[in-house]
This record gives sequence, C-alpha cells and structure tokens, in this order.
Amino acid sequence: MSDYRRITIAQAGSHTGESVEIAGWLYNLRKSGKIIFPLIRDGSGIMQCVGLKSSLSEECFEALKNLTQESSVIIRGKCRAEQRAPGGFEMDIESAEIVQRVPEETPYPITPKDHGIEFLFDHRHLHLRSRRQHAILKIRHEIIKAIRDYFDSNGFTLVDCPIFTPAACEGTTTLFEVDYFEDEKVYLTQSGQLYNEATAMAFGKTYCFGPTFRAEKSKTRRHLTEFWMVEPEMAFATLDDVKQHAEELICFIVGRVLDNRKTELGALERDISKLEAIKTPFPRISYDEAVEILRRKGSEIVWGGDFGGTDETLLSEEFDRPVMVDKYPTQVKAFYFQPDEQRPEVALGVDVIASEGYGEVIGGGQRIHDYNLLLQRIQEHNLPPEAFQWYLDLRRFGSVPHAGFGMGVERTVAWLCGLEHIRETIAFPRMLYRTRP
Amino acid sequence: MSDYRRITIAQAGSHTGESVEIAGWLYNLRKSGKIIFPLIRDGSGIMQCVGLKSSLSEECFEALKNLTQESSVIIRGKCRAEQRAPGGFEMDIESAEIVQRVPEETPYPITPKDHGIEFLFDHRHLHLRSRRQHAILKIRHEIIKAIRDYFDSNGFTLVDCPIFTPAACEGTTTLFEVDYFEDEKVYLTQSGQLYNEATAMAFGKTYCFGPTFRAEKSKTRRHLTEFWMVEPEMAFATLDDVKQHAEELICFIVGRVLDNRKTELGALERDISKLEAIKTPFPRISYDEAVEILRRKGSEIVWGGDFGGTDETLLSEEFDRPVMVDKYPTQVKAFYFQPDEQRPEVALGVDVIASEGYGEVIGGGQRIHDYNLLLQRIQEHNLPPEAFQWYLDLRRFGSVPHAGFGMGVERTVAWLCGLEHIRETIAFPRMLYRTRP
Repeated sequence: MSDYRRITIAQAGSHTGESVEIAGWLYNLRKSGKIIFPLIRDGSGIMQCVGLKSSLSEECFEALKNLTQESSVIIRGKCRAEQRAPGGFEMDIESAEIVQRVPEETPYPITPKDHGIEFLFDHRHLHLRSRRQHAILKIRHEIIKAIRDYFDSNGFTLVDCPIFTPAACEGTTTLFEVDYFEDEKVYLTQSGQLYNEATAMAFGKTYCFGPTFRAEKSKTRRHLTEFWMVEPEMAFATLDDVKQHAEELICFIVGRVLDNRKTELGALERDISKLEAIKTPFPRISYDEAVEILRRKGSEIVWGGDFGGTDETLLSEEFDRPVMVDKYPTQVKAFYFQPDEQRPEVALGVDVIASEGYGEVIGGGQRIHDYNLLLQRIQEHNLPPEAFQWYLDLRRFGSVPHAGFGMGVERTVAWLCGLEHIRETIAFPRMLYRTRP
Repeated sequence: MSDYRRITIAQAGSHTGESVEIAGWLYNLRKSGKIIFPLIRDGSGIMQCVGLKSSLSEECFEALKNLTQESSVIIRGKCRAEQRAPGGFEMDIESAEIVQRVPEETPYPITPKDHGIEFLFDHRHLHLRSRRQHAILKIRHEIIKAIRDYFDSNGFTLVDCPIFTPAACEGTTTLFEVDYFEDEKVYLTQSGQLYNEATAMAFGKTYCFGPTFRAEKSKTRRHLTEFWMVEPEMAFATLDDVKQHAEELICFIVGRVLDNRKTELGALERDISKLEAIKTPFPRISYDEAVEILRRKGSEIVWGGDFGGTDETLLSEEFDRPVMVDKYPTQVKAFYFQPDEQRPEVALGVDVIASEGYGEVIGGGQRIHDYNLLLQRIQEHNLPPEAFQWYLDLRRFGSVPHAGFGMGVERTVAWLCGLEHIRETIAFPRMLYRTRP
C-alpha cells in the first residue's frame, strides 16, 4: 500500500506513469464483459479508471463490477494521458479498496433520472455532489476570490460590519428581528453601508463582505432571504469613482472566471462569447435616457418610477455588456443619496444592470456629506434622528465627499453561470419556504 | 490645482520631489512661531507636513494654524524623505484646502486625554480613527487574507454554510432565535461544521468563513456574541491531518503579519520576539499529560473535566509557542467526535492553545464516520434523530474518515496583537451589553 502515493485527480497530469492512488466516490460505472470503467470523483475532478478482469484479483474485479453509486473507494494504479477521457487522464487499475459500500436496498437517492426541484433541495447535502452543482460552486469560489483580490490589491482595507444592528438602514418592513438579551431586540443587517461610511473615514478605502438578510415575502427566482454582498466605500470620492471601480471590478471577475473556470463553464454549457463581450467601457446612460428606451420598447414606466425586473431585462436587451444607469429620481433612492447640484431632483446614484436579463448586480453612488442636508433628509423620511446621531457625527467631524456601492454575490454567480434561478448559486439556499437542511 | 497629482500617504515614497496632494484629516498639530507641523492621516498612513509662514499665503497659514482636530483637508506640496518623520517622509506645504472644519464649539470628542472604555465604544465610529485601533484592524485584515490565501492555495474550496439553521449543532442554551415567516423559528449558526462535512464529501477539501453567533450570558474579556470563524473540513483525513494543517496555518499567518505589518505591530508595542518564536513543530501533548502538568502547577482539575481559561493560561506558560493537546475525554467533547480505537474513552480531538495565555484558538478533530456509532451518540446526547437524518445520510452514502477544525478570528487577532480584551479585535463589537453603534 505504501508504494502508492495519494494524489488528487486534479494532480493526475503531474503523475503519469507513476504508481498512485486516488480516494473518492463512484460517480458512474460502465461494464463490458471482462472490462469495467468506474468513473471516480474526488471533489477535485473526475477520472475514468479501467479495470481488466485479467489483471485484477477476482475479488477486486467483482467488488468494483458490483459497486453502487456514491460508494467510497480508494483505487490504485498508473495514470496515463488519454485525450478522449473526461479530464484528459485515465487510470489503469491495479488494486482497489472499498471504504464504504452503499447497500443495494438503500441506494443513493439522486439518480441520473429527473428529480423534482423540491426533492433535490431537500437532499441538498447530496445534490452538491452532482457535476452541475459542483461547477456552479467552484465558479462561486472563483468569483469571491476575485472580488477580494480586486479590493485587496487596490488599497482597500477589509473592515467587516456588524450583523446585529440596532436600527434599519432603509426601512423596517423586510427586517429579521432577533431576541437579544433581556427583552432587547436587534435586527439582522441588510447592508453594511452606514458602518462603511465610518470606516472609510478611518481607512480611506474600505470594504465589507458578508451575509446580509432580507425578509422578502415574495417567492421569486431572484430572491434569497440570506445572501452575500460586498460593499466598498471610499472617502474623497464621487459618483465617477463608483462607476470606474464597478466597471473594473466586473471585468476583473469575468476575466478570472474565463481564465480559471473554463471546465466548469463547459459543464454548465455556458455561452462563453457572452462573457467574452463583457469589456470596458460599459455603456453609460442616464435614468432619463433609460426611461425613453423603455417607453420606446413598450414599457409603461413614467418618469419618477423605479425599474422593475421586466424593465431591467428590456434595458439589457439593448446592449451586449452591462449598462450603467445613473441619476435616478431622488424619490426612488434612499435618504443618504447626494443630490445632483444642477438638478436636485435626481440623485448621484448608479445601477449596473447585467447583460442577458440578469438584472441589477451593482447599486451605489455618492452619499450626502453636508450635515444639515442629511439631517433634513432623515426628518423627511420620518427616521428617528436619535438613532442616526453617530451617522451624523461623520458629517460633524471631518466630513468629505464619499461614495461606494454594493454588489450581490448570488446575482453575479447566476449571471456568469447563466442560471435560471438563484437558488443554485449558494450551497444551502434560504428562501420563504426553505430553511432545510 | 491640476498640477498636483493626488496620492495616498502610503505612496509617498514613489513621489519624492514631485508636486502632489494628499487628502485626509488633521491628526495633530504642532506650532512654533512662524512654522507649523500639521500631522495628516489619510487611512493609508500618517505624514508630517511643514508649513512656513514665509512661503504660504497669509490666509492659508492662518487657516492651517487654527485647524481643529479631525478637520478634513487637502494639502499640496512636495514630498521628501525624512528619516526622523513618523512614516519616513515629510511634505513641504505649498497650499491647502480645508474641506470641512470641525467647529471649536463642538470639538472632536476623542482627545489625547484618557477616556473611559464605555465612552470610547459608544463612539466606536470615531474611535476607529485612532492609531491603535487602526493598527489592530489592519492586522485583522492581514490575518483574514492570510487565512484565505492558505486554504485557497492548498486545494480547499470555499463553500460558505448557512447562517439560518433549523437545529442546534451542539445544544441549544446559547442559540439566538430568529422569527422567520409564519411562526417558523430558525437559529443563527454557531458553527458550519455539520454542513462542512456534507460539502467535504462533494469537494474533498472545503472551508467556510463567516460570522457565527453565541448567546453567551457571561461578560468576559474573551467572548463576543458575534464573531468570525474559519472552519476547514477534509474527506479521507484523520486527526493527524488536522494537526498538520493547524500548525502550518498558524505559522503562515504569523509569517504574513511579521512580513507585512511591522509598522502596526510597532504602534501596538507588540513584543515581536514572542511572535518570531511561533515556529513548527508545535509541542504535542495528550490531555492526560496536560492534566498532569496542570496538577503539578496547582490546578484542581481532575481527569474528565474540561479546561477553563485559567488552565489554558497555566498550560501556555510551559511553552514558548502554541501547544497542541489531543485525546480529550469523550464526555467533554461533542457527540460527533470519533473515539480512539485503542481507548474509546478518549476522543480524537485536538485543541491548539495559543502562547502567552491567549487561550484556545483552534479546536477540531476527526468525526465519526460509522453510521451506527453516530446514531447511538445522537441518542445518548438526547438529540432528535429526525433533525439529523441528512447528517446521517453522509454515513449512508459513501462515508469516509474525515476531519476538520475551527479557528476563531478574534482570538487570533487578540493574540497576535497582544490585546487584553477581545472587544478591540473587531470594528463594531457585539457583547452582552453592547449592540451600538
């Protein structure tokens, strides 16, 4: 046994001709008389193994021939390059050790046949082993790593914001309430932005990256109750800085996914050309222009209203890459948006609408830095000024123009993977009727 | 104005002799007749500027001379190397622009004089600007980046676990309860481990890294109600793999902090020699040996009990680096620990106790992979078997020996920074009596 060095399937290319072992699970098995082809997955990849009756002990050959799906196994032999094989390599089996055999009478519940969505998500702990889900979550990892690398290498400091917050950032209808201690109530964060504004004044450029929560009662293909968001914030910055970083960030992420996750995009049958088209500069239009385009395309939107999912899809049809829409009416944006100096009825905010109908992936803008204007907006929005004293402090003590944005991880994953429904973008999705497993 | 290129203070070294501007806040101001020395911080660093009455407009000189603490300002001039200056560079002021002046009548509340802890944490949104807090959070960023880089470059896939969980991982007394929809209750996660075991069977090696929650009623210097934890999990792995990765991870983190955060360690007056001593191999002792050491040192611990904070401190006094203690009595460990084959009364678990009395920073071990034994333990612990069916599935379908651990970010930050109290290790700490700002 000690003659065989343990490798992962992803490492097979560096070990051709060597005696090695792989440890994994039986993904599939083809048999043809005196030869068997167990397809093994180990999490790093999938490898076809070849077992000849003539070169294996009878016990080993029979055990592998009758192995059940998802049984765990260690296989020993020599790797060789094989262009026709799934990962480019095959292993000629010399011996094998069954770690745990799934019994015939209680077989692995997810078979190649079609299962209903509810069944698959009830078995999400196993569903993640399937090739499609595996590919999506590998791309998710790549996206998250790209986001962090982008900010870390551009002078941003990671300063995570609290999950437990005393008050709402933007209204209270979709807040989750938590029983804290002795009848105190706290809420789960919906955005780290207000806190980011404080940390940007301490570190210049910061970002937070964590889970956020929204008690959305609507059951749509775009909403989760628990989702991850990255939110950068910059001191001495304006709307233009937001646009520049939003554009560069998206292109950086897409580049990383194209460079490192071709295999996974292939497993998802993703149309790569759509991703390759995502290049700077992104088209930049104003809200006014967006409304004109939408009305021309048959939307009933009138100036002053916010875009719905259908409007976003209609807009995205006009462009082969994401489009940046800026200067929304103040009334559809949160209280802290800086108004345009020339046209105070519009806010210095921007949304980045993904291509191919994947909706808004980034929203942000410039924040009010004037104390009196911010206080006035807090009052106009009927927010309790006491709760915002600390936030007002940021305008009392060295206020500067500042700006930032938020990007939803799951929407980005859905977009880059080309998924219909957001539930596949996260390992254990939480939705209106889904809190298990 | 356009002649001056905007740089950050951290970039000053590449711009000596050039006309540049920095944008930041007044950290301190020394005056001496016809010369002023404003100390400017911009989040990337601190730079002393020099203003001569003879070379500035009277308006500019007077404005800077009377500038109040934390007022925001843009300063233009030329940088030059100056060994005696805090960051190694100084700027000779040519002109300045006050962005917002903090009025004398409402001065910045945090002054160089001593403030009480409650006052400082009530003003945490401003407190983060101080040199000490800035240094701590820069080191926190470095630690988090090192952790992620370690796992990403060692073949682990990031698969984050849900925050909303239907059931407890290890008992329910310290769980935070959330009102979900229509009278459903969910709980905030205390550990992603059970989910990690599922994802390790899909990806081979995985980690999750996010906030976790513990409703600890105790108010100690080591506990937060909201803290961040990284938890790796490996399929086909044993207790030895946990020890190896735990040791390598800690040394990797310490190396990164020593390489990249010398300035910040200096600001904290951290004894660097203590960090330089953290090298492999870490001493490895058994629980039995640890009990012997403790009793020799006067502890009243008896075999079978868990270590308290004082015991951990006593143990750490024996070593100049972290110590790994393994094979704890089964009764003090969670239901899922694999028992030692030779001595079933001890569990294949390991704790890494930090040096200098900073307590347990890593806890982990090998999990039970046998279906029947796991079911028996669930029953012995009076846990509801229905809730654990999905977890038992991992032993029905391709079970393999597997192992993993958890590392608390805040404890690690406290240790490497040499902090007395954990509240300084996170931007906005949440504790028994602290949920604001």
